[in-house]
Amino acid sequence: MERLTSALLEDAVDQISRMPGIGKKSALRIMLHLLKQPNADVERLGNSIINARNNIGYCKVCHNISDTETCAICANPRRDGSILCVVENIQDVMSVENTQQFAGLYHVLGGIISPMDGIGPNDLNIESLVERVKAGGINEVILALSATIEGDTTSFYIYRKLADTGVKVTSLARGVAVGDSLQYADEVTLGSSILNRVPFSGK
Amino acid sequence: MERLTSALLEDAVDQISRMPGIGKKSALRIMLHLLKQPNADVERLGNSIINARNNIGYCKVCHNISDTETCAICANPRRDGSILCVVENIQDVMSVENTQQFAGLYHVLGGIISPMDGIGPNDLNIESLVERVKAGGINEVILALSATIEGDTTSFYIYRKLADTGVKVTSLARGVAVGDSLQYADEVTLGSSILNRVPFSGK
Repeated sequence: MERLTSALLEDAVDQISRMPGIGKKSALRIMLHLLKQPNADVERLGNSIINARNNIGYCKVCHNISDTETCAICANPRRDGSILCVVENIQDVMSVENTQQFAGLYHVLGGIISPMDGIGPNDLNIESLVERVKAGGINEVILALSATIEGDTTSFYIYRKLADTGVKVTSLARGVAVGDSLQYADEVTLGSSILNRVPFSGK
Repeated sequence: MERLTSALLEDAVDQISRMPGIGKKSALRIMLHLLKQPNADVERLGNSIINARNNIGYCKVCHNISDTETCAICANPRRDGSILCVVENIQDVMSVENTQQFAGLYHVLGGIISPMDGIGPNDLNIESLVERVKAGGINEVILALSATIEGDTTSFYIYRKLADTGVKVTSLARGVAVGDSLQYADEVTLGSSILNRVPFSGK
């Protein structure tokens, strides 16, 4: 890293380069760009980051990110409260929302069981999921976790935890991705999509 | 872009994605990372950006970036004040400093003559360069500008402006880059390095 003639710049570059995916060179480029912007704009940037950190909380029901006690999804009376979609993190809520195919509520685990990373069931929001289901009114729990060993382990753990509640537990269909050629699909995925074939709908 | 359930998050992501080279997806990833950091760390990040913007100035002598009226390089009594290195911008000062081959002072133009971008000589710190040279004590001016048409145009303009001061004007050697194979050097560069060949020093 180059020696800078400004301690203030050095400090700012140092701070920016702590952001994930931003190295010292990019941080310097960003900061030199910001120095050319109006002071008010840069203040707005800095303050919006601080403000977000200090005031964003998590929904007490589903653990999704929220500015209020209950998130906008949980508080929406038009969402179907009888079906829960269990996801690993906040990004996954956004991904599912993006499909516009799901009108139920969510439950954000805040991670996935991963012994390698020292993350066990007790580090995740699984207990509150079981309580939500036991409280009644929920007919189906969709386990929308990654198609990885960790995802499958977590799904199986939750499945067993929910076994005596009698709730219907489903998981995402695994199969050939839309737009993919069969010849490029891996055999496990292709095999799974043959086993789980669906009636042809013509859609 | 996904719909976010937090207006604060949306605002912060929006602000971060205005930084050069950072899109909405990266901004979201950065902000979700910051939400996991201690509040104090995020406040330090935000404030150091604001602080840098509000308090960094430019050296009144060489126009390099500086926290003080005169930058650390200009104020250093061990630097050779008789030789000036003219560069386009602050990054170029850092690049030259990094070589550890230059112990003189700098003059930062703040850009390069570029009619296409509407940048003329009067938009650059050329007048103050001429004044510095006329004030005396400077024996050599090194034009360390990019080897582009704009760089050459700017060099030529400055060369003519300094003609009647009698100062020695030099420019960077152009030639085969260290580590480069001759067969990959372009013919103009190779031709220039033949014309400007130097006595073999064995170094």
